[in-house]
Order: sequence, then structure tokens, then C-alpha cells
Amino acid sequence: MSDTVNNPVKDAAKDALSEPSSDSGISRRRLLGTVGAAGATGLVLGAAGGAAAYAAAGETPAELTTVGSTGVPFYGEHQAGITTPLQARGHLIAFDLAPGAGRKEAAALMRRWSALAGELMAGEVPGGGDDTGVALDAGPSSLTVTFGFGRTFFDRTALVAQRPPELDPLPAFSSDQLDAGRSNGDLWVQIGADDALVAFHALRAIQKAAGDAARVRWQMNGFNRSPGATGKPMTARNLMGQIDGTRNPKPSEADFDQRIFVPSRPSGTAYDWLAGGSYAVVRRIRMLLDDWERLPQKKQERVIGRRKSDGAPLTGGSETTELALDRAGPDGKLVIPGNAHARISAPEQNGGAAMLRRPFSFHDGIAPDGTPDAGLLFVCWQADPLRGFVPVQRKLDRGDALSAFIRHEASGLFAVPGGARKGEYVGQRLLES
Amino acid sequence: MSDTVNNPVKDAAKDALSEPSSDSGISRRRLLGTVGAAGATGLVLGAAGGAAAYAAAGETPAELTTVGSTGVPFYGEHQAGITTPLQARGHLIAFDLAPGAGRKEAAALMRRWSALAGELMAGEVPGGGDDTGVALDAGPSSLTVTFGFGRTFFDRTALVAQRPPELDPLPAFSSDQLDAGRSNGDLWVQIGADDALVAFHALRAIQKAAGDAARVRWQMNGFNRSPGATGKPMTARNLMGQIDGTRNPKPSEADFDQRIFVPSRPSGTAYDWLAGGSYAVVRRIRMLLDDWERLPQKKQERVIGRRKSDGAPLTGGSETTELALDRAGPDGKLVIPGNAHARISAPEQNGGAAMLRRPFSFHDGIAPDGTPDAGLLFVCWQADPLRGFVPVQRKLDRGDALSAFIRHEASGLFAVPGGARKGEYVGQRLLES
Repeated sequence: MSDTVNNPVKDAAKDALSEPSSDSGISRRRLLGTVGAAGATGLVLGAAGGAAAYAAAGETPAELTTVGSTGVPFYGEHQAGITTPLQARGHLIAFDLAPGAGRKEAAALMRRWSALAGELMAGEVPGGGDDTGVALDAGPSSLTVTFGFGRTFFDRTALVAQRPPELDPLPAFSSDQLDAGRSNGDLWVQIGADDALVAFHALRAIQKAAGDAARVRWQMNGFNRSPGATGKPMTARNLMGQIDGTRNPKPSEADFDQRIFVPSRPSGTAYDWLAGGSYAVVRRIRMLLDDWERLPQKKQERVIGRRKSDGAPLTGGSETTELALDRAGPDGKLVIPGNAHARISAPEQNGGAAMLRRPFSFHDGIAPDGTPDAGLLFVCWQADPLRGFVPVQRKLDRGDALSAFIRHEASGLFAVPGGARKGEYVGQRLLES
Repeated sequence: MSDTVNNPVKDAAKDALSEPSSDSGISRRRLLGTVGAAGATGLVLGAAGGAAAYAAAGETPAELTTVGSTGVPFYGEHQAGITTPLQARGHLIAFDLAPGAGRKEAAALMRRWSALAGELMAGEVPGGGDDTGVALDAGPSSLTVTFGFGRTFFDRTALVAQRPPELDPLPAFSSDQLDAGRSNGDLWVQIGADDALVAFHALRAIQKAAGDAARVRWQMNGFNRSPGATGKPMTARNLMGQIDGTRNPKPSEADFDQRIFVPSRPSGTAYDWLAGGSYAVVRRIRMLLDDWERLPQKKQERVIGRRKSDGAPLTGGSETTELALDRAGPDGKLVIPGNAHARISAPEQNGGAAMLRRPFSFHDGIAPDGTPDAGLLFVCWQADPLRGFVPVQRKLDRGDALSAFIRHEASGLFAVPGGARKGEYVGQRLLES
């Protein structure tokens, strides 16, 4: 295989709507599929690349767009799937280590999973000869696979001394209605891709590679906009119709890394294995859409504090204009109400607490009570949950007008190690400490 | 609004991967969103189109790709969503008429739904002032909304004399394990779009517009590949990893219309209201993926009769090569086994019985027994189910090697009227007969 074929990864931060800039978007997976096919009828192909292979088979050369051809690097300082642009499809899955499995089995599992994630994200057919084939034909489609450790992982692996205090259980919030069976877990994997079959393929491969070491605890499916469905400048919308994510920290901001990633500590410190990592808070937030949709739009906007059309604050401007929190209207009342979601969650109202919100919407059909089982798979990232999610959620829990229209149904908190270098696996610095 | 803005619909059969050919892809929805935003800050915009509106607001002009900008016409000889290329996201929803609702309420409902579907498919914000906003910013994204009537609809509307015998209940198949609560229904709506939020928006709008006339009976979600994830020549794959749909009738074939659409009968005939329509058979087919994936690929290929890599028959060639059904291997046995799925379902083995299979995959997480609740929302279209789905399924039911790996869990049969002309509604010729 040529280098081109072995290295199809492109910078995912590049515009996902532009045309592919090179042949590198044609993945080894697609080429192998074609070679396999041709081989069976006696055709022998050179390493001329996927498009040529298709031409040799008498078919129109395939035309991936960047939707399919974009690859995200697995190896690096941070794991992928944190600053990667939102993908159209996502799976969250949590595992518990199997009875009898400990640190050794966990290390072997993380080694297997890391190698597999590296192959999948490069658009390669995973080794072992038992691939399901569900992702054949497709490019890597911005696939990311991200691994995290829950609090209980450290008990099971006898690594309690290495467990950072940031993994202490989240405080209870008065509005929580959490289902323990769909919360937490020893291990957590986030999968995202711009193609549903590529994402499903990765999910099944990760499950299979768990082998006897870990058992599925819970699993959830989500989605976001398809690339190209809207123009570039659009922030995501959620299923309430609101633009969602406007105030997210931007990688271009000077303090971004400090807010999102765990800093390095003096070598030998118990928690230094997490340098370059992050904490993920995961919440299944059910939206009470029947109630919400009965609310007239003007009232919805007062609940949020922003206009539905473009996400601009009710005090005017565009989506990115700062909230004029003190401005009163002609009636003397605050234009952005005191309990508006945007006010209460604003970083400047929370001592600068910041988290990178990177959610998927979910829709699991109709619940037994006839309402839509839909909402937000809220995933947020921060260097310290006590300075990110917790203070903001505490405040929202007390006074957010949106609370009447949502319900937190499941919760997880995971320590997400930094990225692996080639030849390493995610979590190696912990598991081999 | 200019004509361009009011008529953004393009031919959906055109290549979904090419660049937009005109400004018409910028939907009224997006323009309205922008106008609304600007209006609130006192900006007055001309009818210069969406891109200009964005520029006026100081933002980068939006760049929809054809993923978002493609619109499918609602009005026409046939309903959309039958020959429309597979979309990335789908919802199936069935309703029963509410107690007390009859023909009059059904007619009013179909009038409301048709007008709504016309607006949604054109990328317009539905009238009435209570839009959820979930599809704001997005183009129509190949949205289709397709309506069908179940057998019981004719009882409820006292139109039994107009009920065609083709709507008689499907025969029971020995391998059926059908859930009545997720089967059939008075009314059926199929929604498809290349963007998940556009599809969800349409689903909620259709539900809301049902008002007091009809109640949701069941609802299912599905998906297919994202446009651009693979090259153009690719037939869809299913969650077993098999290429699926190779033998579908092609609209370019001379007898396509005759096979798929109900012919016109002498005017005044009881069933002539269905001219230009079709019958949809809907089956929720669970795939027993844990069992399937344990089967080595070579054995999987013998179950199907085709290669996994490219869908070519085991007797060689490419995906579109005819099956050499009589060919034996060196061992004297048939190369395509006697119970291979491709053999048993081949049109030439079924008196030419043909149906247009247009499925979505589904994945509803993990079932209570720990297996994936995943498979195929099988939807097939034919002029007569007794010459399409039924004979093929009867044969598969008896001897298909694939049967051990699938389970039919729900079933529906619906008469899908022809398309509406402007000013008409779907089913008008029945309901006003």
C-alpha cells in the first residue's frame, strides 16, 4: 500500500464543505474492497489507488465528497472527539469491567481498543479478518472514537491512589431524575461520524473488541445536522429549535486549553497520567417537547433569553453579540428575564466557569406515556468539572426557566486521558504506572 | 418574495453530490430566518435572496451544498418518496383516526397534511405562526413526506366499497413474530430527508397537524448512508454489511411504471382513485446481529449468495452481473446454494415478481436481552402486493438461509394514492368520491 493510502487523514478542522483536495480521501477500506472483489474474478490490480481500481472494474470512478473523505487523526496530544466539529451521528456506550477482570485485562482492552480506533479512524478495515463490512465503500467520514474512565474503574483496577478528586461523584441536583442503569460506568466510549453506517460499524467493532473483559452497561444514539444542510456560519440547533452552543469557548481563545484540558503536573504526581486529558460530563436531557411546543414563540424566547430565529440576545444584535444583562425595557423590566437560561448559564454570571458543550440530539421514538422520547445527549468538556459543569448546573437547577421543560434522566462523569502517541494506547500512563 | 425564493425545488434525481447550480437552493426558510432577525434590529432587507441577506448582516454568505439545497417536488403524478433516492434519515409513523372522526375529518386532515407537506418540502416555514424552528437555517435537504391509507381507514371513513382487494391482509408467514401495536394503522406517513433535524421537524409538524383527528399508533426511526460518504456508484449497505438493493427495478426500465404504480382504470371504477398510486409494504425486520457476526464471512456470503465486498454473485462478475444459478463448483455443488437469499428472492425465480425496495436501517439501542435492537425498516413499493412482496416473501419464508438471522417484528400494508396537483390534496379523489 502506498503512503497515500496508508495516511488518508486530513485536518478535520478544515472546511467540511469544500471539495477534496487530493486522492488521499480514498480510503484503504474502499481500495481493499475493490481489490477483494477483483481478486475473486482473477483480475490483478496494481496499487494505483481506489479510483483507478474502480475504473479497471468498468465502473464510474467514485466521487467521495469531504463528508466521506475527511479523516481525524487518532494519535496526538489530546484524544479526538473533543474539539472535532460536531458529527452528524453519534453513539455513547458505557461498559463495566467483567467479573474477575482487573488492571491487566483493562490494560489489554485499552491496547486493543486503541489500535482498533486508530485503524477505524484512518478508514482502514480493522485487522483480524472478521470485519462486519458495514463501513465498506465509505471514507472515514470524520469518525472519532474517544475513551474515558469512570470513578469505579479505579476501584476495579486497584488504582484508587491515581484517581483524581475531580472524579468524585457529581452533586445531586434537585431536578435530577436519574436512571442509575443508564448512568456512569467503568469505561465510556464516545463515537461520532458524519455517516450513520460508519458510526454503527465502529460501535459494533468496539463492542466486539471488548471480548470477555467488559460488558455493555448502557448505550445511547444521537445525531446532529448533516454537513452541507446549512451554510457554514451556523451554530447547531437543538430539538427545541434553539441555536445551542453560541457561548462555547473557541480553540482560538488564549485560555482555551487551560479551561478544557488537564494541565501537566510535576512528574511523578499521582494524577499526572491525565495531563492533556479532560473531564466529560454526560447527561441524557429529555426535552418535554409537547409542553415546549405549546408555548408561543415569544414566551419560548423569554425562557431562553435569545431569539429563536438567529440566537441573538433579546437585547439585540446578532448571535455573537454580548447579552446586555442589565438592560430594561419600556416597562421597566429586564429585557432578558432574571430566570432566562442564557442569563443564568452565562460565563460572566458563573465566575467565568467554562465548559465546551459538544452534544448530540437524541430521538428514541415515543415513550410509553405517548410523549416523544427526545432531547439532548449533553456532553461537555472541561479541565475541572467543579469549575465547569457543576457551578453552572447548580445555578440552573435553582432558577432556570428552562427547567420546567427538561428532565435530566441519566448522568456520567468520566476522566478522559490525553491522546496516545503512535505505539502507545490511551490510558497507558495510568495502567502501567 | 421572488419566484426564485418561492420555487426552490430542484429535480431530486439529479446528482446529489454536484454543486448547486443556482441560487434557488437557498430556501425561503433560511431567508425568512434572516429577515426575522434583521427586522428585530430595524434592518430592512430587499428581496435580494438569502446570500445577500447574510452579507447584509455582516456574516459570511452561507454555503449550502446540494445535501441541503436539493428539494423534491410535492406536487406531481406520483407522491414523492417512492422513486426519490434514499435519504440519510427517515421516520415512519402510523396514526389511527380518533374516536368519532370519520370521512369528513379525514378529508380535512389530508388537506392540512398535504398543504403542510408542500410547504415543508419546498423548504418554507409552515404557516400558522407556531413553527418549532427546528429546521431553521437548513435547506429542504431532499425532504419527502408520503401518505398512505391502511385497510382500516376504509372502515372508519365508510368507504369500504372503494377499498381495493389488494389491501386485504397480508398472509401470515411462518417466521413472523409480529407486534400488533407496531403494525398497520389507519394512516401511514413516511418522512425522509438528508438532514436529521429537517426530518424531525417534519415529523413533529405532521404530528401536530393531526390535531384531534388522529392519534399516533406507532413510530419508527431509520437511517441510510450520508450523501458523499461513498462514491456515486454505490448501492446501499445494510447493517449486516451486505450490499442491498442491487436487483431493484430501475426507473429507466420500460416496465418500471407498470410494476410499481397502479394503472388507471376506466373512470368511475371503484378503485380508480388509486391511479398513479402504489402499495407500500412495511416490515420492521430485526437482524440478529450477534449471531450473524459470529458467522465467518465465507459462510455469510453463502447465506446471501453474493460477495460482501462488492455484492457480486458468488458465480463472479460485478454487482450487476446476473446470477449463474445453475453453475456448480468443482465439488459438484451449486456455487450459489439452493437456499441462498439472492437465489430465492431473484425475480426470475418468482415469475418476475418485482418490488422497489426502499428501506431505512434502524438502530434503537440495546434490547432487554442485551442484543442490538437493530435491523431494517423494510419498505417496498409495487403496483400489486400479490405480485410483488407476497410471492417473494412466501418463498423466502419457506427456504431462505437468511431466515435464521432475521425476525419480522412488525408489518403494515398501505395504499398510497397518486400525487396531488396544485390546489388538490392527497387522497382527494377517494375522500370526495
